[in-house]
Amino acid sequence: MSSKNYGPEYVRAIAPYQAGKPISEVAREFGLDEATIVKLASNENPFGVPASAQQAMAAAVAELGRYPDANGFDLKGALAKRYDVPADWITLGNGSNDILEIAAHAFVERGQSIVYAQYSFAVYALATQGVGAQHIVVPAKAHGHDLPAMLAAIREDTRLVFIANPNNPTGTFIPAAEIEAFVAKVPAHVVVVLDEAYNEFLSEENQFESAAWVKKYPNLLVSRTFSKAYGLAGLRVGFAIAQPALTDLMNRIRQPFNVNSLAQAAAIAALNDKEFLKQSAANNAAGYQQFVEAFEQMGLEYVPSYGNFVLVKVGSDAGAGARVNLSLLKQGVIVRPVGNYGLPEWLRISIGLPQENAVFIAALAKALAE
Amino acid sequence: MSSKNYGPEYVRAIAPYQAGKPISEVAREFGLDEATIVKLASNENPFGVPASAQQAMAAAVAELGRYPDANGFDLKGALAKRYDVPADWITLGNGSNDILEIAAHAFVERGQSIVYAQYSFAVYALATQGVGAQHIVVPAKAHGHDLPAMLAAIREDTRLVFIANPNNPTGTFIPAAEIEAFVAKVPAHVVVVLDEAYNEFLSEENQFESAAWVKKYPNLLVSRTFSKAYGLAGLRVGFAIAQPALTDLMNRIRQPFNVNSLAQAAAIAALNDKEFLKQSAANNAAGYQQFVEAFEQMGLEYVPSYGNFVLVKVGSDAGAGARVNLSLLKQGVIVRPVGNYGLPEWLRISIGLPQENAVFIAALAKALAE
Repeated sequence: MSSKNYGPEYVRAIAPYQAGKPISEVAREFGLDEATIVKLASNENPFGVPASAQQAMAAAVAELGRYPDANGFDLKGALAKRYDVPADWITLGNGSNDILEIAAHAFVERGQSIVYAQYSFAVYALATQGVGAQHIVVPAKAHGHDLPAMLAAIREDTRLVFIANPNNPTGTFIPAAEIEAFVAKVPAHVVVVLDEAYNEFLSEENQFESAAWVKKYPNLLVSRTFSKAYGLAGLRVGFAIAQPALTDLMNRIRQPFNVNSLAQAAAIAALNDKEFLKQSAANNAAGYQQFVEAFEQMGLEYVPSYGNFVLVKVGSDAGAGARVNLSLLKQGVIVRPVGNYGLPEWLRISIGLPQENAVFIAALAKALAE
Repeated sequence: MSSKNYGPEYVRAIAPYQAGKPISEVAREFGLDEATIVKLASNENPFGVPASAQQAMAAAVAELGRYPDANGFDLKGALAKRYDVPADWITLGNGSNDILEIAAHAFVERGQSIVYAQYSFAVYALATQGVGAQHIVVPAKAHGHDLPAMLAAIREDTRLVFIANPNNPTGTFIPAAEIEAFVAKVPAHVVVVLDEAYNEFLSEENQFESAAWVKKYPNLLVSRTFSKAYGLAGLRVGFAIAQPALTDLMNRIRQPFNVNSLAQAAAIAALNDKEFLKQSAANNAAGYQQFVEAFEQMGLEYVPSYGNFVLVKVGSDAGAGARVNLSLLKQGVIVRPVGNYGLPEWLRISIGLPQENAVFIAALAKALAE
């Protein structure tokens, strides 16, 4: 029997998430030496895991035969303190991907609708499909969210709106005042999931405390992750902040042991490692300048980015992204094609260390000259 | 607004999983010293994480800033070799809890039904509720699965049957021939999830290779875990073996980075650590004898167990389990009450190290004398 004999129609319709190619896979596929490959594909922190987190993990290894703390007592305590909310307003996730999926399952049932923006994070579409909900995809404005159009798109049957700020894969940003005005106007029965995976890369003047909004808006859920600026992508830990009415439902869907013990220990250490975060943000700001100068020199269009990546247009035909990507892969540089986002002329490049950025820029110049 | 304003009716009806109390929580609650507490509550391996897995993890720490391999290339390769199946027959899970939840989402939609046995693993009920499916709970026979009754209970709208072998929390076992005869009779449109979390504790004469059945039965999915005999509960890794028609749908629901990098590395090492597995099984067999002798001496009824835990009846009234459990907690011994399974007169005790077992036995005698 084939897959069509099993499972709901809406599950069979899902196109699985396309992850960035791991270094080992590119090495196998293109016959390259792993050590020479530069990966700027998954918006990871080029500094890797902080030393503080490594130390915290080492201390936790002895207890790894035990199940993790299902209630995440220590990590939730640290987050509650950091964001000035009660610990029972926090839901831990196996990365923020888990938070986004849990939210869809907790708040939306088959046939109801979810609103999200064109060119926003691929997991919004997957989470919508996973519960058999209807997609309301609102056309982007300058590659970002068109909040008035998103508000107008909310229907009677809408239960959830995903907002990414900054947005991935485009890097666009919505100022605090606009987001709050939007949340204030969303009908009370619709949950707003504000996905701030890239928040820590914002410059000081753009920073704002969305956790404070959660106190005002019972239908707001803020999603954050330790996978980006905190450097813990391989460990899987994210979290949500929302009032108890929402958090209670999230916890009914959440798998009890979804966040492993080392991730809990490492996240507490990383949360308190302000120096690491500062260095990561500084490296990112410098790398962004390095990219922008190169793109301007090459006459390439790019979307001004507030995250740790830049979306750049590498040609004017629909084959451009795939063609340049293949040339980069052959040169041992892994970036992210975004054809699956409806952006086939563009590539998304994560900001790495200065030397990695330079390798990419040289490889891109070569690819474009081919 | 309260929770009743949000989310599907079937989500609001879920009673979240009750995890065993972590040692730190019991210490806080009862004013005890953590170091003196004995935890025999979560069917964990008392040897903890194997040294081989610790070494493998140490080597993987440097790459923790990267996302895990979404396709689990190396771990799937090792499992494919071990079970003699193609790598694309394997789905990795964030523990086998994840496998069970993914299966429910991949194969069942709201209003369809799922069959499982009374007194079988609590996550079957949660996974059923999580997709808004109907529960068909088949009465147990001698605390175990009544396979003929389960077969008869399958309806036109049934899409999945959960079988736990050995079963948790009762420890019962179904011989290989009976399981295979059952699978052969299940209608082709119904997926059988055979949950073998405790398989590695079976004595040699009870062992069988269910992966071989997967080759014969396109509707069979075998679920396994590294949380029990392999000692990796804190890391979260489990897996499923099924033909591509089922595996393909599992992968549409699976979160791409559901298994963290350290778990993948540790699982490969643990899979190859035959000595650790042998020692764990031997300790378990000896501890089981220790418990059985004590229970017989105390005149306590118990269910003969094939897992790493024993279900024991600590009184004849509905308050017995809770009462004895409280006395044990005050004495610093954590076991698992099973009132939520409809077994309020019983407790489930995990098998620990000989000294831990002895502490529990003495505490139980004291509790019963109170």
